[in-house]
Amino acid sequence: MTQTAAASAPLICPSILASDFAKLGEEVRALEAAGADWIHVDVMDGHFVPNLTIGPDVVKALRPHTRLPFDVHLMVAPVDNWLEAYRAAGADILSVHPESGPHVHRTLGQIRQLGAKAGLVFNPATPLSVLEEAVDLVDLVLIMSVNPGFGGQKFIESSLKKIERARAILDRAGSKAHLQVDGGVVAANAGACLSAGADALVAGSFVFKGGPDAYAANIQALKAAAA
Amino acid sequence: MTQTAAASAPLICPSILASDFAKLGEEVRALEAAGADWIHVDVMDGHFVPNLTIGPDVVKALRPHTRLPFDVHLMVAPVDNWLEAYRAAGADILSVHPESGPHVHRTLGQIRQLGAKAGLVFNPATPLSVLEEAVDLVDLVLIMSVNPGFGGQKFIESSLKKIERARAILDRAGSKAHLQVDGGVVAANAGACLSAGADALVAGSFVFKGGPDAYAANIQALKAAAA
Amino acid sequence: MTQTAAASAPLICPSILASDFAKLGEEVRALEAAGADWIHVDVMDGHFVPNLTIGPDVVKALRPHTRLPFDVHLMVAPVDNWLEAYRAAGADILSVHPESGPHVHRTLGQIRQLGAKAGLVFNPATPLSVLEEAVDLVDLVLIMSVNPGFGGQKFIESSLKKIERARAILDRAGSKAHLQVDGGVVAANAGACLSAGADALVAGSFVFKGGPDAYAANIQALKAAAA
Amino acid sequence: MTQTAAASAPLICPSILASDFAKLGEEVRALEAAGADWIHVDVMDGHFVPNLTIGPDVVKALRPHTRLPFDVHLMVAPVDNWLEAYRAAGADILSVHPESGPHVHRTLGQIRQLGAKAGLVFNPATPLSVLEEAVDLVDLVLIMSVNPGFGGQKFIESSLKKIERARAILDRAGSKAHLQVDGGVVAANAGACLSAGADALVAGSFVFKGGPDAYAANIQALKAAAA
Amino acid sequence: MTQTAAASAPLICPSILASDFAKLGEEVRALEAAGADWIHVDVMDGHFVPNLTIGPDVVKALRPHTRLPFDVHLMVAPVDNWLEAYRAAGADILSVHPESGPHVHRTLGQIRQLGAKAGLVFNPATPLSVLEEAVDLVDLVLIMSVNPGFGGQKFIESSLKKIERARAILDRAGSKAHLQVDGGVVAANAGACLSAGADALVAGSFVFKGGPDAYAANIQALKAAAA
Amino acid sequence: MTQTAAASAPLICPSILASDFAKLGEEVRALEAAGADWIHVDVMDGHFVPNLTIGPDVVKALRPHTRLPFDVHLMVAPVDNWLEAYRAAGADILSVHPESGPHVHRTLGQIRQLGAKAGLVFNPATPLSVLEEAVDLVDLVLIMSVNPGFGGQKFIESSLKKIERARAILDRAGSKAHLQVDGGVVAANAGACLSAGADALVAGSFVFKGGPDAYAANIQALKAAAA
Repeated sequence: MTQTAAASAPLICPSILASDFAKLGEEVRALEAAGADWIHVDVMDGHFVPNLTIGPDVVKALRPHTRLPFDVHLMVAPVDNWLEAYRAAGADILSVHPESGPHVHRTLGQIRQLGAKAGLVFNPATPLSVLEEAVDLVDLVLIMSVNPGFGGQKFIESSLKKIERARAILDRAGSKAHLQVDGGVVAANAGACLSAGADALVAGSFVFKGGPDAYAANIQALKAAAA
Repeated sequence: MTQTAAASAPLICPSILASDFAKLGEEVRALEAAGADWIHVDVMDGHFVPNLTIGPDVVKALRPHTRLPFDVHLMVAPVDNWLEAYRAAGADILSVHPESGPHVHRTLGQIRQLGAKAGLVFNPATPLSVLEEAVDLVDLVLIMSVNPGFGGQKFIESSLKKIERARAILDRAGSKAHLQVDGGVVAANAGACLSAGADALVAGSFVFKGGPDAYAANIQALKAAAA
Repeated sequence: MTQTAAASAPLICPSILASDFAKLGEEVRALEAAGADWIHVDVMDGHFVPNLTIGPDVVKALRPHTRLPFDVHLMVAPVDNWLEAYRAAGADILSVHPESGPHVHRTLGQIRQLGAKAGLVFNPATPLSVLEEAVDLVDLVLIMSVNPGFGGQKFIESSLKKIERARAILDRAGSKAHLQVDGGVVAANAGACLSAGADALVAGSFVFKGGPDAYAANIQALKAAAA
Repeated sequence: MTQTAAASAPLICPSILASDFAKLGEEVRALEAAGADWIHVDVMDGHFVPNLTIGPDVVKALRPHTRLPFDVHLMVAPVDNWLEAYRAAGADILSVHPESGPHVHRTLGQIRQLGAKAGLVFNPATPLSVLEEAVDLVDLVLIMSVNPGFGGQKFIESSLKKIERARAILDRAGSKAHLQVDGGVVAANAGACLSAGADALVAGSFVFKGGPDAYAANIQALKAAAA
Repeated sequence: MTQTAAASAPLICPSILASDFAKLGEEVRALEAAGADWIHVDVMDGHFVPNLTIGPDVVKALRPHTRLPFDVHLMVAPVDNWLEAYRAAGADILSVHPESGPHVHRTLGQIRQLGAKAGLVFNPATPLSVLEEAVDLVDLVLIMSVNPGFGGQKFIESSLKKIERARAILDRAGSKAHLQVDGGVVAANAGACLSAGADALVAGSFVFKGGPDAYAANIQALKAAAA
Repeated sequence: MTQTAAASAPLICPSILASDFAKLGEEVRALEAAGADWIHVDVMDGHFVPNLTIGPDVVKALRPHTRLPFDVHLMVAPVDNWLEAYRAAGADILSVHPESGPHVHRTLGQIRQLGAKAGLVFNPATPLSVLEEAVDLVDLVLIMSVNPGFGGQKFIESSLKKIERARAILDRAGSKAHLQVDGGVVAANAGACLSAGADALVAGSFVFKGGPDAYAANIQALKAAAA
């Protein structure tokens, strides 16, 4: 899992939440061919969020279809007993919510012990204070710019200020963690996200609109927004 | 959703739990072509059972790929708030566990009000006493012959006696509900299941072994077991 | 709390679930004047059932308005920590569900230790097997003839057989416990309930229809059904 | 629902928690006649707080008795599935706790989509950091000056500083949200609350002491505290 | 772990719940010297039962002090994730409640796979119907003759009939499982327990009364009751 | 419970988590003889943390063995219903986590009403913001320098900065509360903890290594670190 996070080359992380679940392997291959950097996998358990998506066996089935990193966002609580299964299924990054249990510091440490990168995710109304406590343990910070659970929602404008605050915390701590944004990301706001300090963009509907033939152009449009 | 449940023609319900999750649409089409009667969908939420599989959006994505009934086994608790989503996604049968909440009579009634068939599922150690209370409301009884959560487990022999008891309860009540068995079903025990009173067989590993080219023969082997 | 439970004089227990919550004291007084035997209070916590009604302070506020027994049906889980509050508020009978916790035998014993009568309630799909285990500890058995949570539902016909089975268990054990039925009870089915073995009828909509002036006639109609 | 929030005219919001639950309709009418601005309704589910009060059907029963706004404080968790019921019952304002679920931003948005005003409530030990994240979505901030669950508690003095901090956050954000305080509010501390930045006072015991004849004077005493 | 279960020689299983927790090692050695057959360990988690006792590290610390089997009663829910820890700590028998989760058949199987004996425990109001479903998987049946959670309670007389029913189920199935009784067991009722079909007696207060010097006599008194 | 908290004389609080559970009374006496200031008791319920240790009856059994204060760290949720039991068992200090329920302000107040000292505990990733809200109610602040649940873990270096921040909050508020640190404390980092502002050190493995003969020297080594 190597990549440069230069401001001019944001990581584009298409979310398979918006793909065709009937042919996920093909979708993943198409995304790799179209220039995606990471495959963003939204795992929802129907308890932490009001939707249920896909579990470890689906992730495992996709693993042979691409060499891209699997960036797995665990919308699951409690989460600790699930880390191993997703790592074994092929996850490279495992991101968790501070609300997933009272021991998120342990959770982040366990993810690293499993050899994965550890991500910490902030819902729109969740303060960044936990980030300040756990900044040493995070390889990725994910700012949700919609309330997680469903695709196709509109970007919450106040997320830009939150990205700025997260960037400041990371910089102050000398952290090299990625700063990712997820929810309603489109070409029109991608530049603002990057200017605010993000270096990785999750995108669902925007990448998938127009079908497989349009994936490359859509991804390119997001990358171009950084210029 | 029409089918005959004659003893000589058991319904074969391949479980997509054992299919290739990277190409579910193709799998479902192959199963229809191979002679499957229903598509059995194992929904697990990682709370009621220690595994998480697929949610409503996946079911919805599969709907256009086949005209076979979707027989959705909800391993989810609490379950009442989820019925509508799976029905809207295309489920024809929704099966629930008595352990999914204290109001399973209401749950079964809600399923029928949504226009779906209502199934009631019994774990290996769960007594059939709830069936006696709710027999008027069930269109399907599912006897688990393994503990739900994972594919590839071995058939629990004592399930045969349980099928017999369920059959007796249904017959006594004059119920026309299907009697289905799920877990470790193979050609070698399919006949015994049917003799015990089952008329619908869920099969995972057995149907999928050998790949798509073997599906028809595998399904045929199960059907032949009834002769 | 004295009453005779002769077959010819069923106890009529109007449920305040169907009364005017804006003037509960007046309603309770009107019910006493109209010949009600017990005031049936439906306590719902929005967790055990999908509705929330009234809590201990409301029961307490009603206590001075009548000398009739308060027959409090606790649709609450877990229930053990709540018994004292409702007893202190003036409950004479406290009825609980076997699903309210794994120690219902203790719960029933605690109710009696608090000086109240102990009731055990059965949802439509709940087997009576717990009654056989705890028959020594019950002063009241309540058979739900609808799924609890809301007023105005239709009587489930199979409840009659369940009343018969409950009556048989009580008689076999030599129990003098009351056998109550709740849900969709109207004059047209009251006789059948009593014939099946019930001696106490909860009624909501039926008693309250027509307003306070009709309460006496409505209650009389239920009593007459026993003749 | 129109009102002016001038410092000289605080909104007085009597809490029916301290009223006579046996004649709520009459109480509500008396409060309107006595000059109350809003009716404050404390909904407790016995899970989020150790008390259970009243549910949606009670709110609905009160709706015809007054034209005052119903300001409903939901001490309920999880809360999302209950918003619609209280709105349909006649609530004008729905206030929720950040502890009621991990997606309070969504909750606040849903309340507004239902056409109600959205309130955010802070327990005595709950930091205001969530307010900073969600200030765009709140129409009301409620600072609890006692631990919620019961009436008749003593005002926690440190709440004044918290009101000041909340006021600063609202002003900094240019928010026009009301700032309400609830718990142990009496004439002796009302002025301090208003000076600290509150513009709406919930009062229970203080308003109801002396009975209906005293309501107007009690309310007036609170209003006078602002002068 | 070998023993004969002849009617004339019941297994005496002192519960350390009634011992001196300040010197458990010494207590366990004294019990072995006094003729105890098994050491009965009551594990309570404060959630399944309203008491918390001791966990795996305590069991482990006791292991070197005796060669007697550790018969561990897990009053814990959910229980599946805890089996390994207690087995590793030295448990020989692990007994669980059907209420500990919806998959008790799996739980019993897991206990055996860990090389321990599997026990199934029935609360006073819990029907034996689950035993009929899982009889193939049990090495021990424990009938609670008090509601679990605390020592020093009085024997529930109706437990004798329940022991008889459990004995009948075991015999009918050809099971060699032990049938144990726990709660208020004293010399005066031990004989009745054994006559009803029990072959193992848990005793707390009765064994420990009089201090270590009396243990042997107390245990002998229970054994004598069988004669 | 009297002690001076001068920088030169930190309170040493050996955690019995690392002692021999088979002879806790003896261990506690040895600790008092060796110069311990408080006995630190780690109560874990297997739900709030992934370990279960000891409950109120064990604490009670230890009470006669020492006159040292019992400093009980409750890793239990929800915690409110347990305070009385531990206080009755002999606890002098009861420390709780902000994650143990939404009403920690009430919890702290209840502890004081029971006549005990109230402690507030911060997990490694938990922000100190709750301390700022509840500083008036705390007699002890405990900074966890490992994730709670198990002994023998390594000290998290960033805890030192957190101790400094907690010290600043306490000083700013004029609080005389103790500031305690727990997790991986050894002679090598004790000085740094004290310099950062702690005045009480919990130590497990470090105190117990070498057996009872070494306890005094180990405790002395920690005290010396302050010089």
